Amino acid sequence: MFNKILIANRGEIAVRIIRACREMGIQTVAVYSEADKDCLHTLLADEAICIGPAPSTQSYLNMERILSATVAMKADAIHPGFGFLSENARFAELCSKCNITFIGPSAEIINRMGNKSAARKTMIEAGVPVVPGSKEAVHTSESGLAMAKEIGFPVMIKASSGGGGKGMRISRSEEDFTEHFTAAQLESVKGFSDDTMYIEKYIEKPRHVEFQIMADRFGNVIHLGERDCSIQRRHQKVLEEAPCSVISPELRKKMGETAVRAAKSVGYENAGTIEFLLDKDRNFYFMEMNTRIQVEHPVTEMVSGIDLIKEQIRVAAGEPLSVTQDQVEIKGHAIECRINAENPEKHFMPCPGLIRTVHLPGGNGVRVDTHIYGDYKVPANYDSMLMKLIVYDKDREAAIAKMQSALGEVIIEGIETNINFQYEILENQAFRAGDTDTAFIEKYFPEYVK
Amino acid sequence: MFNKILIANRGEIAVRIIRACREMGIQTVAVYSEADKDCLHTLLADEAICIGPAPSTQSYLNMERILSATVAMKADAIHPGFGFLSENARFAELCSKCNITFIGPSAEIINRMGNKSAARKTMIEAGVPVVPGSKEAVHTSESGLAMAKEIGFPVMIKASSGGGGKGMRISRSEEDFTEHFTAAQLESVKGFSDDTMYIEKYIEKPRHVEFQIMADRFGNVIHLGERDCSIQRRHQKVLEEAPCSVISPELRKKMGETAVRAAKSVGYENAGTIEFLLDKDRNFYFMEMNTRIQVEHPVTEMVSGIDLIKEQIRVAAGEPLSVTQDQVEIKGHAIECRINAENPEKHFMPCPGLIRTVHLPGGNGVRVDTHIYGDYKVPANYDSMLMKLIVYDKDREAAIAKMQSALGEVIIEGIETNINFQYEILENQAFRAGDTDTAFIEKYFPEYVK
Repeated sequence: MFNKILIANRGEIAVRIIRACREMGIQTVAVYSEADKDCLHTLLADEAICIGPAPSTQSYLNMERILSATVAMKADAIHPGFGFLSENARFAELCSKCNITFIGPSAEIINRMGNKSAARKTMIEAGVPVVPGSKEAVHTSESGLAMAKEIGFPVMIKASSGGGGKGMRISRSEEDFTEHFTAAQLESVKGFSDDTMYIEKYIEKPRHVEFQIMADRFGNVIHLGERDCSIQRRHQKVLEEAPCSVISPELRKKMGETAVRAAKSVGYENAGTIEFLLDKDRNFYFMEMNTRIQVEHPVTEMVSGIDLIKEQIRVAAGEPLSVTQDQVEIKGHAIECRINAENPEKHFMPCPGLIRTVHLPGGNGVRVDTHIYGDYKVPANYDSMLMKLIVYDKDREAAIAKMQSALGEVIIEGIETNINFQYEILENQAFRAGDTDTAFIEKYFPEYVK
Repeated sequence: MFNKILIANRGEIAVRIIRACREMGIQTVAVYSEADKDCLHTLLADEAICIGPAPSTQSYLNMERILSATVAMKADAIHPGFGFLSENARFAELCSKCNITFIGPSAEIINRMGNKSAARKTMIEAGVPVVPGSKEAVHTSESGLAMAKEIGFPVMIKASSGGGGKGMRISRSEEDFTEHFTAAQLESVKGFSDDTMYIEKYIEKPRHVEFQIMADRFGNVIHLGERDCSIQRRHQKVLEEAPCSVISPELRKKMGETAVRAAKSVGYENAGTIEFLLDKDRNFYFMEMNTRIQVEHPVTEMVSGIDLIKEQIRVAAGEPLSVTQDQVEIKGHAIECRINAENPEKHFMPCPGLIRTVHLPGGNGVRVDTHIYGDYKVPANYDSMLMKLIVYDKDREAAIAKMQSALGEVIIEGIETNINFQYEILENQAFRAGDTDTAFIEKYFPEYVK
């Protein structure tokens, strides 16, 4: 087992990883930017090292500084969390060259699955259903349009390197295609220095259903059931739950086996997520694979009883999976609400600043993953997530009631948050009936998405 | 189902009950003393009513005021929590007379089990093993001494109405008997207005193991496994866990069936606890029955997945138990640490006062049940418990590591607490090996019990 792990991330996921390490008896090193010297992850780790100024390129995205810190602090592994360098193949490769274990899959797999066109090809070869679309990547709007006409409108335009909703546009007709293609490509070039795009059939009103995968280096691959992440705003997840209310045990088995097959086909190792679109007729299509832990991993932990971060660490240290597929039992229902420092009434404008008072909910089945505390100043430099509020109860109805009760107890004074917006989602009758798709927020909260 | 429940208690257990009600869609009424107007239970309930000055006899123990409040607020049931009026048969009877549901067993059962001599007799008749001792109650030290000689020293002198360690003394020989008897009886008279005592064989170094019972009005009685509450200081529980590390599945079945038989023999209804002493040879003896929810109920909730407060409410409303014995599955390991406002280095002197800052731990498998918050002033009038910190993990070793990590994150500034003491218990090698009995603290922490 590792002696010391450096966490190449910040905020709540860094806190989450530090806690797992402490419980496993592993020393921790936090890295922090100058803007994060008072962040909880910096304070909680056994050791902490400043790696540069606030802009991520000079700190959390700066591979050389992170690797130097790892060597200097004598850590033997790096946990990348999510975002930042977590899906950066070059970073995984550099770790390997420095004899540092990167807690995640190999650089080669990150590369293969991170490139959406390559991933799609791989999945087709593995017999995994994909959304009808371009087999080859496109670089110009002309070739994109030709492709779109062949597939038939509406189509989704996607940046090959994209993620988190960036570099994605829907085109509904020939007329608007060029405008959307250009906008998506521009975002991709700006965000990922990559103009590679692809085009696929746009599935109307699908659910976003993703399967959690865990794999060890002995070829054992299991899935831990699905998460329904259909509640999104501009392709950003807002509320997630497990299990998905419309997936039968038979469909779960079928989709789970497909996800496992997908992971096995690339010799996958460590935690990963296979994202599917599920249409109204319960057809499912591979969307993409995330080769890292997800923000919403706690809902899977609640219903499966398996600690995914500890499992990641164990697997990366060469241990076999702690459970077999047969031992995995999905029980009860979990919901996660992302509490963000943002103002829903002002186009979800981020609202960083000084938090004067924090009061967190607690009690039976209530889990809080956060890095905030009273008098903490939320820096403007990073994403606006303050807290993940997770509840677990015996069924979906009970979990919804519990989340409403828990949200009602949260007090965050000093800055704006989306707590009321989350509460309104839970109050919505269609949501309560389980009648959701990725257009849910657009449909029921049009005033918020204008 | 009830429309509105009045919670005849304060602090964390009142908060716990309010949360359960909110999740069930039941309105809540908090009662509070003048000292508790800023306590979280007062702030969290849908309605709150002041029932008198700080001394409990004028508020939380004042039956007339509580019943008047219940009628005035149009609540149809009362949850008594633990302590205060929770085991007061007369209060249960008065509720019944006022057509208010008392969430607990009937007055008759409370009476029968609350009187330790009567309970003992009942258990003997039901074939439940009891500690050898006096069949009849004693009122004078002379008759007590005669009884003690018959049983053989060491003996335990117990007040019939006692509880929470009050009115209990160990006598090791004829010489010290009268002194201890007189002291115990005096405590009983002062605390419970009752001079009825009884004498029983003192079991050396037993474990305190208690079984959680749930019963509905249709005669269904189940147990939810055991809690090991051996870590005590002056008969006050300090740290509790579930399951007990030395109980095999076979012994659990046997003790559980005995506990169910005990409850059935009195036609028990609602939640209750059968407390046993478990000796080194795994013999078990009925000690007493608590006819209410216990402080340490969360550890059972964590390992059984059953919400005991919700179950209490459902059963009291006339619903059947939500599970059968066969459906009860004990999984994983849970530990609870009671965090008190007290100074272990000054004989655990209570340390009420202003809490300046509170920072609570969180994350996977960490549960906090508390009524405190930043700038809350802990009143001197009530018991010193500030918080129950509960952790759940796959096994005992992992749960201990998690509790240590979680304790390390708690910040309570402004008053003294027993957090370091709890940490030391978890560090103790005998504790870690599961080698504990009720004399654990006396043996390993003599400096604290002097």
